[in-house]
Amino acid sequence: MQEMLDLAVQVEGLDGLELVGNWHVNDDNIYEVAEMFSDRGLKICMLTPDLWTQAKWGRGSLAAPDAPTRQAAIDEVRKVMDWAAELDCPYIDVWPGQDGFDYCFQADYIEAWQWFREGLTACAGHNSKVRILVEYKPKEPRTHCFVNSAAKTLLLLDSMDNVGVLLDVGHAIYAGENIAEAAALLSSYGKLDYVHLNDNYRSWDDDMMVGAVHLVEYLELVYWLRRLDYQGWLTLDIFPYREDGVAAATQSREWIEAFFRAVDRVGMDEFAQVIGRADACEAVDLVRRAMNI
Amino acid sequence: MQEMLDLAVQVEGLDGLELVGNWHVNDDNIYEVAEMFSDRGLKICMLTPDLWTQAKWGRGSLAAPDAPTRQAAIDEVRKVMDWAAELDCPYIDVWPGQDGFDYCFQADYIEAWQWFREGLTACAGHNSKVRILVEYKPKEPRTHCFVNSAAKTLLLLDSMDNVGVLLDVGHAIYAGENIAEAAALLSSYGKLDYVHLNDNYRSWDDDMMVGAVHLVEYLELVYWLRRLDYQGWLTLDIFPYREDGVAAATQSREWIEAFFRAVDRVGMDEFAQVIGRADACEAVDLVRRAMNI
Amino acid sequence: MQEMLDLAVQVEGLDGLELVGNWHVNDDNIYEVAEMFSDRGLKICMLTPDLWTQAKWGRGSLAAPDAPTRQAAIDEVRKVMDWAAELDCPYIDVWPGQDGFDYCFQADYIEAWQWFREGLTACAGHNSKVRILVEYKPKEPRTHCFVNSAAKTLLLLDSMDNVGVLLDVGHAIYAGENIAEAAALLSSYGKLDYVHLNDNYRSWDDDMMVGAVHLVEYLELVYWLRRLDYQGWLTLDIFPYREDGVAAATQSREWIEAFFRAVDRVGMDEFAQVIGRADACEAVDLVRRAMNI
Amino acid sequence: MQEMLDLAVQVEGLDGLELVGNWHVNDDNIYEVAEMFSDRGLKICMLTPDLWTQAKWGRGSLAAPDAPTRQAAIDEVRKVMDWAAELDCPYIDVWPGQDGFDYCFQADYIEAWQWFREGLTACAGHNSKVRILVEYKPKEPRTHCFVNSAAKTLLLLDSMDNVGVLLDVGHAIYAGENIAEAAALLSSYGKLDYVHLNDNYRSWDDDMMVGAVHLVEYLELVYWLRRLDYQGWLTLDIFPYREDGVAAATQSREWIEAFFRAVDRVGMDEFAQVIGRADACEAVDLVRRAMNI
Repeated sequence: MQEMLDLAVQVEGLDGLELVGNWHVNDDNIYEVAEMFSDRGLKICMLTPDLWTQAKWGRGSLAAPDAPTRQAAIDEVRKVMDWAAELDCPYIDVWPGQDGFDYCFQADYIEAWQWFREGLTACAGHNSKVRILVEYKPKEPRTHCFVNSAAKTLLLLDSMDNVGVLLDVGHAIYAGENIAEAAALLSSYGKLDYVHLNDNYRSWDDDMMVGAVHLVEYLELVYWLRRLDYQGWLTLDIFPYREDGVAAATQSREWIEAFFRAVDRVGMDEFAQVIGRADACEAVDLVRRAMNI
Repeated sequence: MQEMLDLAVQVEGLDGLELVGNWHVNDDNIYEVAEMFSDRGLKICMLTPDLWTQAKWGRGSLAAPDAPTRQAAIDEVRKVMDWAAELDCPYIDVWPGQDGFDYCFQADYIEAWQWFREGLTACAGHNSKVRILVEYKPKEPRTHCFVNSAAKTLLLLDSMDNVGVLLDVGHAIYAGENIAEAAALLSSYGKLDYVHLNDNYRSWDDDMMVGAVHLVEYLELVYWLRRLDYQGWLTLDIFPYREDGVAAATQSREWIEAFFRAVDRVGMDEFAQVIGRADACEAVDLVRRAMNI
Repeated sequence: MQEMLDLAVQVEGLDGLELVGNWHVNDDNIYEVAEMFSDRGLKICMLTPDLWTQAKWGRGSLAAPDAPTRQAAIDEVRKVMDWAAELDCPYIDVWPGQDGFDYCFQADYIEAWQWFREGLTACAGHNSKVRILVEYKPKEPRTHCFVNSAAKTLLLLDSMDNVGVLLDVGHAIYAGENIAEAAALLSSYGKLDYVHLNDNYRSWDDDMMVGAVHLVEYLELVYWLRRLDYQGWLTLDIFPYREDGVAAATQSREWIEAFFRAVDRVGMDEFAQVIGRADACEAVDLVRRAMNI
Repeated sequence: MQEMLDLAVQVEGLDGLELVGNWHVNDDNIYEVAEMFSDRGLKICMLTPDLWTQAKWGRGSLAAPDAPTRQAAIDEVRKVMDWAAELDCPYIDVWPGQDGFDYCFQADYIEAWQWFREGLTACAGHNSKVRILVEYKPKEPRTHCFVNSAAKTLLLLDSMDNVGVLLDVGHAIYAGENIAEAAALLSSYGKLDYVHLNDNYRSWDDDMMVGAVHLVEYLELVYWLRRLDYQGWLTLDIFPYREDGVAAATQSREWIEAFFRAVDRVGMDEFAQVIGRADACEAVDLVRRAMNI
């Protein structure tokens, strides 16, 4: 962890890091972890319960077909909420990657949906200092995850006040969503709580640097984040498999700043006017001017 | 129309046909149309307002950026509802194919969503004899349609009692959905009202015959339709571009019946047991036995 | 045609247009057409035999399962070659959109491949003033076209000296190709003869304006076109369904020029150096600087 | 290894296994390995050089941008060829998964292609008892692999007599190929040497059991394998992440046998006749009868 944090501070503009429960934090090291972060002026922006790496989650967590596993998942989420509260971390990220199915005839869709809602409800009120965020993803490790789109997540969380949504931009892209539309939809339901940034080639969670592929879509997203007055974290969730991690994070931050510059270059009003006219030729002209190419 | 109906009666097991407002039905011919159907023992199972072929819908219908077009769409839907009531047709199919966007920065996602809800609400109570069904589709003619998945449609229709959903199986497939899961989700919200059957290669609305590609998924769908006690129409929405229409419809019907036979071959209880065990090996074994291969 | 040409001259920088045999050119009007073009200082850059709209091509053209259709296709191609020669147009575009299949068990892949090779060979030497270009496309109107990738086209044209390739950038994108790689591959076999420009969302031939989606890929393509010393036409093949045609063409041209400016901004040498180091972080940095964002 | 082989013999009908060089075989254990196989009556059907797991292949193997890595890859392939010869294994599987690129501007497509051809040529004649097979795959671990389709592999291997192709059915599916067409194409160039069987959902190498998704396509493939008189191995390359390995292999074998039964049910002649008529309605009827549903 020390090593990770020492690398992290080399990334200019980095204010915090996400941690995973049991991987990085446990009952024994919690105060030590808090100190390592405060020593470096870093925040813990997210604590994620590990609901996917251990064998016991092999057939699901909150929506597993057997009741004891579902209860174990609820217990795990609650425990991590308490750790988060101790660490002054306002969010936990429930990413139900193992809840889904690989083959047809392997899931009872009606029951799974109810189990999910019951499990989240059972967790939601556990610790009022911590808000649960659900992170949707279309697939992997399952070939089909149940919670696979912005709209389905909103439907799942209907009437759960203390539960919000984590929008992972890469997940939205390979779920076939327009990412700005996803952000706007979540925001209009009061549930655009947190954003993960990365990029991919639309068919898999490649976790590439920002700036890799979707320049137009990212520009539109950044415009909408500003328009929606999004004040939350912009966190990198990249996986620099062959790259230097500090360099990859730095490049991603440079691209994000470039998109904000591009929005400023044209100005919020002009964006609004072009959108209002719904004219494709004006739209591509706007993008070219904003990009400054 | 006479010609179309004369072809239709050649398809064994065909009980009814869908019509499009203004294409097939108008104020002048409505009783004549009713008679043509009753003469042949056919029902009009659906009347669809034309919200996509005329130039005035080029930038949208119920969610168009300009208010007069939105009002014109509401008027069109209401008029077709009245025609449907006259024809004893219980449903109209609102397919908002032009409501969406092609390019980034061409749509105001927040406003479009509100306009959609306002428009549907304005239509919903217009004629109590007729239920509005919304048909979702990921794209075409727009590169992005707003109403593009089962979950998003349910979200859109939240608290609209007299509005349901038309599940077009091909649309669901190329929206990346598991079709049985989509049917189950819609049903659990009381909105699995009507089903269009066809098949495709997952990236476009090829409107192929049933039996063309997705045998496992169709088998699972048919099992769930029976389990959900779906009593509605199973309508073919195929486009036999190079084929004889009667032969293509006949083959599709044969395949549908074959899937029902396959479900019966194994029995509902065994399906439920295999699903309950969530075991992939049992699932593929079940499929092989059901298919009788 | 007059009207089309009068619109065309409104697009700044437009030097020529493509025509389709029988749609625009026939034995009776050929000199009249030539004059309309020369009057306006426009060139005919391509003549395309119509091998897809008429009913006789419904099951294929050069690779149709029946011999008379195949012969008719050869005759059509040869006739259009002669028209092209008369019009000083150096290319004809063989786009075999109907040669393929929709369903499994609908094509004899071995025979179709041979028929294609025989047909092209029969045409290749017909008129030495005109070069046949084959345009590949993954699908539409067929769900599967036989000639669906750069590599497969090169394989098909093996040892056919007077036959080259038309790279339609949109076709390459939704065939899953990296477009710069496709251009380089074709060029290394001496068959990058002609380029169609447009853009799409990777799953269909949306025929959108340049600048719509694939900015990074287009920048890479333009770099490679310059490096490969491509001197051929850059033709727009866009379909501005809801847009003003002149405006859409103008925007596309502006984007193309912007990409060339972006390449110049950084310089060919630096591109080569970054590519040589195969470093992803340098690559995304290069793109950001070239785009000037 | 003992454990693996003891599990393997539990799969009815299994005749051999593939091994990976250095993982399973090295200079020290080669005779021991041979004995373990012969003791159980098993063959080593394939030996695969490990060109992907070690850090030295991180930027490529046979087409790496630096010459020493390319030479190391050639040496590795040759060494494994010699081991294969010692083990009476007639094939090695060159799967160049690291040869490709993740980002635009990260590869020199022209040079990479030449390096590939030079490397394969340098290996091809090394040991006349062993045939090199190249296994294509569209992506993973790279977002773009150079050798990504049947046609591109054939182009790459042009005029290399002692090098063939390994068709991994799952790779072909998510490369967007029709698998029967890919088999026929490879066979017509004398390079359908070996087949890997598995299934997936068309966007990733899910390595699922045969019978999971593509029933129609698999039926067509099996028909063509028989028609092409394919006599080579049919090897399972599945990854039963959550399943019992023996059960998953057994189910896959059952499905393969079922497809052969289905072909026999209708008979080769009838398949040929239906294909010859290129009629979609007959094709889906044929599939239904063959499947016996």
